[in-house]
Amino acid sequence: MSKLLDGIHSPGDIKGLNVNQLNQLSKELREYLISVVSDTGGHLSSNLGVVELTLALHYCFQSPYDKLIWDVGHQTYIHKILTGRKEEIKTIRKYKGLSGFPKRSESKHDVFETGHSTTSLSAALGFAKSREILQENNYVVPIIGDGSMTGGMAFEAMNNASRLHANFIAILNDNQMSISKNVGGLSTYLDSIRTGTVYKEMKEEVEKTLIKIPKIGRDVVRVIRDVKSGIKQLLIPGMLFEELGFTYLGPIDGHNISALIRTLNQAKRMNEPVLIHVNTTKGKGFKPAEQNPTKFHSMKPFHIKNGKCKNKPCRESYSQVFGDKLVSMAKNNDRLVAISAAMPEGTGLSEFAKKFPNRFFDVGIAEQHAVTFAAGLASNGIKPVVALYSSFLQRAYDQIIHDVCMQKLPVVFAIDRAGLVGEDGETHQGVFDASFLNHIPSMTIVAPKNGQELEAMLEFAVAYDGPIAIRYPKGKASGMADHPQTPIAYGQCEWIRKGEHVALISIGTITETAVKVAERLDKQHIHCSVINARFIKPMDKQMVEDVAKAHNVVIIIEENVLTGGYGSRFLQHVSDLQLDTRVVNLGIEDAFIEHGTRAQQLELCRLDEKGLYEQIIPHVRGLKHQKNA
Amino acid sequence: MSKLLDGIHSPGDIKGLNVNQLNQLSKELREYLISVVSDTGGHLSSNLGVVELTLALHYCFQSPYDKLIWDVGHQTYIHKILTGRKEEIKTIRKYKGLSGFPKRSESKHDVFETGHSTTSLSAALGFAKSREILQENNYVVPIIGDGSMTGGMAFEAMNNASRLHANFIAILNDNQMSISKNVGGLSTYLDSIRTGTVYKEMKEEVEKTLIKIPKIGRDVVRVIRDVKSGIKQLLIPGMLFEELGFTYLGPIDGHNISALIRTLNQAKRMNEPVLIHVNTTKGKGFKPAEQNPTKFHSMKPFHIKNGKCKNKPCRESYSQVFGDKLVSMAKNNDRLVAISAAMPEGTGLSEFAKKFPNRFFDVGIAEQHAVTFAAGLASNGIKPVVALYSSFLQRAYDQIIHDVCMQKLPVVFAIDRAGLVGEDGETHQGVFDASFLNHIPSMTIVAPKNGQELEAMLEFAVAYDGPIAIRYPKGKASGMADHPQTPIAYGQCEWIRKGEHVALISIGTITETAVKVAERLDKQHIHCSVINARFIKPMDKQMVEDVAKAHNVVIIIEENVLTGGYGSRFLQHVSDLQLDTRVVNLGIEDAFIEHGTRAQQLELCRLDEKGLYEQIIPHVRGLKHQKNA
Repeated sequence: MSKLLDGIHSPGDIKGLNVNQLNQLSKELREYLISVVSDTGGHLSSNLGVVELTLALHYCFQSPYDKLIWDVGHQTYIHKILTGRKEEIKTIRKYKGLSGFPKRSESKHDVFETGHSTTSLSAALGFAKSREILQENNYVVPIIGDGSMTGGMAFEAMNNASRLHANFIAILNDNQMSISKNVGGLSTYLDSIRTGTVYKEMKEEVEKTLIKIPKIGRDVVRVIRDVKSGIKQLLIPGMLFEELGFTYLGPIDGHNISALIRTLNQAKRMNEPVLIHVNTTKGKGFKPAEQNPTKFHSMKPFHIKNGKCKNKPCRESYSQVFGDKLVSMAKNNDRLVAISAAMPEGTGLSEFAKKFPNRFFDVGIAEQHAVTFAAGLASNGIKPVVALYSSFLQRAYDQIIHDVCMQKLPVVFAIDRAGLVGEDGETHQGVFDASFLNHIPSMTIVAPKNGQELEAMLEFAVAYDGPIAIRYPKGKASGMADHPQTPIAYGQCEWIRKGEHVALISIGTITETAVKVAERLDKQHIHCSVINARFIKPMDKQMVEDVAKAHNVVIIIEENVLTGGYGSRFLQHVSDLQLDTRVVNLGIEDAFIEHGTRAQQLELCRLDEKGLYEQIIPHVRGLKHQKNA
Repeated sequence: MSKLLDGIHSPGDIKGLNVNQLNQLSKELREYLISVVSDTGGHLSSNLGVVELTLALHYCFQSPYDKLIWDVGHQTYIHKILTGRKEEIKTIRKYKGLSGFPKRSESKHDVFETGHSTTSLSAALGFAKSREILQENNYVVPIIGDGSMTGGMAFEAMNNASRLHANFIAILNDNQMSISKNVGGLSTYLDSIRTGTVYKEMKEEVEKTLIKIPKIGRDVVRVIRDVKSGIKQLLIPGMLFEELGFTYLGPIDGHNISALIRTLNQAKRMNEPVLIHVNTTKGKGFKPAEQNPTKFHSMKPFHIKNGKCKNKPCRESYSQVFGDKLVSMAKNNDRLVAISAAMPEGTGLSEFAKKFPNRFFDVGIAEQHAVTFAAGLASNGIKPVVALYSSFLQRAYDQIIHDVCMQKLPVVFAIDRAGLVGEDGETHQGVFDASFLNHIPSMTIVAPKNGQELEAMLEFAVAYDGPIAIRYPKGKASGMADHPQTPIAYGQCEWIRKGEHVALISIGTITETAVKVAERLDKQHIHCSVINARFIKPMDKQMVEDVAKAHNVVIIIEENVLTGGYGSRFLQHVSDLQLDTRVVNLGIEDAFIEHGTRAQQLELCRLDEKGLYEQIIPHVRGLKHQKNA
């Protein structure tokens, strides 16, 4: 490791450095970051983009007395390195290692946790107001990307900011990207600021006209100057922010440390909400990432030499199965459209976007709008498929109830990353969707056991005339080719195998594990039925009755929180039928599940083969000697 | 009834009228509306504000071929009268009568349903895009208030609108109010447009300077004119909208029919997203409502003569008990702050706002921001109480999980209007909160049985160091003075009475009904224990065990959907303990509950005394001869 970085153990250590040294340190930080992330995997592009910005922030502010509040939070690797976690960064996103996001338990410099976008301005206003109440004197500095700005909550916060007559320095980190290329009117607006088009054009026009004037009196010059300055004041970038009550500074080159420091210090002297517009380049300093920032947004371990993944090339994911199937369906269905919220790649919709640009809508990070937009489309005869990650769909909970389900509109929700998600950890776990959708009237929820069934369910969902959600997990799509597919029938389960002792009812892809557990129990002479629930809602009531009557014990297995999930409704039905079958619900306990690999998390929740087997055994002991009722 | 209105049976009937007649019709509509609402109660101020606007819209557009999409929807009374519901309007908000909001089942002119704010622009974009896909040619016209504009979803939609190169005519109905006085940077901005301050000042400055110039050559005049026009273009109101990609027209006097028609026709000729800024006066034409639009926002039946309520003056509501208690607590607790989302009156916080202006935050219609703002305050040592209606809290579901509970921040959620809400109907029912909060780790949920207990729970919640929600219903706070209050202890229920046959466990204010049912069952010689659950989460596990062991039947009564509620977790605990007690869950079935009085809705859901009694009887028959286990 190079010299300067060796001496950095806390933000205090960079205060004495001069600009040349800070530039040198940026270089070293970048090299270190690339080296670490090439080993661990993780968010690379966004972190490479904020090296100088992070340095400048820690140079100008006194963290943690001053509050740095990072939006989304996946761009805090440099912040972590500078705040005493230089060595631990090598464990980032690993089980029991550093989180990939700010964590208050990790460091006093992580003052607010996040993982979803667009929360920083609201949180920062909370910090600023609390400072006022507590009569403290610190600076509050939220750092928000232009992608996060497309989330409505950012505007809610900006609309509230102007009433704060206090230091509040928002950094707009403008890299022209969400995870994918950024979209919308705001994006176009920021673009015009960056290029300065409007101002340049107007300036040239005025100057051209001035040249034509033969003689100009002193007063006229003054008028022109006044008016020009008026125009300039008006044309300076940032009007939109100024109109919402911010003082706008910028745009600044986010890789020029002197400019950054100068502007931050200027902002510190202002006693009002300030927005500093900083232009950065996602992936800066690492060619493969600069050229393809989306690919390097969240990356597996890679070779530094060429940016290629160390492991075998991508396996076919559920996202991919979904995306491919949707493309093939859209060829024969002119009314089928797809909606993504800044995640065309992540949700497997890139190909759809290319093939059907007029029927693909990337609305930006705006899940609420995505869902109500879909409701609007659906009320007029179009069939929208809204593809979102489970944890981000949480943002649109009210819109699902109020705009889709209350009107029984035929919107298809393709819920990707349902279940445990691995390295992203707590904030990204998709373990609530079955519960928050389960209690919404008129909603149908299905979960496929494998890739083949995801295709069949997608066909079923698109043909279905009402709100319907399909939940499927992160990772490689399994085929289960040995189990021939039975057609999807509304509200009906699929019996995978029959056994006389115990029934395992599994929801979604965990069915594969359930089958393995059943095979293992066979060896103990405990014979299991395995039922693939298929429909989380409505419940297959005939099946509940059949299963409960044919077995003394029913075990429900779901990759979702237990409260409000499939199992809780199953139990209710058994209770309503006054059956005395024992129902055991296995799923995710009432806790946020920390980061690690998906396999580690399944193990932690005892939902892997071993964990399930061990959980089931106490309930089935002795059953082999019983006859069923 | 006057002449012109008699002849109006569909929007077609106004097309032939001239401006004088339209003005006359406005007058008649207003009189009719006041007369109807003085009898039925309902939303008055907002409807009085849009009389001319609604007439102009139906005059210029061909509904339902053209799509009028009303935001929030409580201002559609005039629309309903003009679209064939002139007589039925007398049944508005009554059981089996017209809904107080747009309903597709009521009329083909109600093209999109709503009740929550800020959905219209997103839905309208859906309609506009579907029109493109279906190659139709209609106009899409969302009508959105300035209050609704403070909701982030409006900005999400505006950010997406600029990519629609299609007719899309948004009407900004600017009455300077949400339900209460509007707030924030956007509000200030709209205010500056209305008064034209900036433009006027700049214009005067330029003209003053021009006068001083002795001689002006032709070219100079041209320069000045060009520059002035440049300035004007820049200074004309609406830059904020223009910057987001809208063409801005206005501001227009919303009570001037000619001006409205002229501008709407101008907008129809434009082939791009247009925003028409219309200034209206909430309560227009009815003095008491003009003077106090908030009071007349949603009104009980009143005397036309003086605007006073026909029924006895306001009874003490739960909102009021909450607000008063919070005021008294804030006197001794400098760190206690209150947050409202455009509802200081509705949530009982007016007094708090007056007494502690520096500790009261009305964030506008911005529930997401309200919650994350609270999280920011709480991370810095402040104790925020966020008071929202249950159905609006749905908007902040993700923020509760991601910003509050994941960080275990001590935010108090005061959930008003939990349970059935009466006349507002489906969109406003607060029947999901116990379910959507129940599965969130680290959340505590309590429900008071009466006003006295609400006070005690509020004290408990403010002292509690973690996320905690208190749910209480609409309506008069009951005292239950005959049951002395036992102190609130974390996670512990309260035994109201003991009986040997059956246990009734009730959640919240329905406990009062449970006691009455128990008294009625006494007469049948069936003796009930009644337990006030107090804590929905965590469950009082000792109580579960005690109750289940002491009774053969346990009946859970909750004013919430059954799925994912208290009862489902109770049943799970009983099942986990392998007890064979029969558990019967009574609550709200899986359906949206239509409008009517709260009493009618309780009856419909069989949660009134009679309904509960009848539901319970089949489960307890024969119990009087049994002894408990």
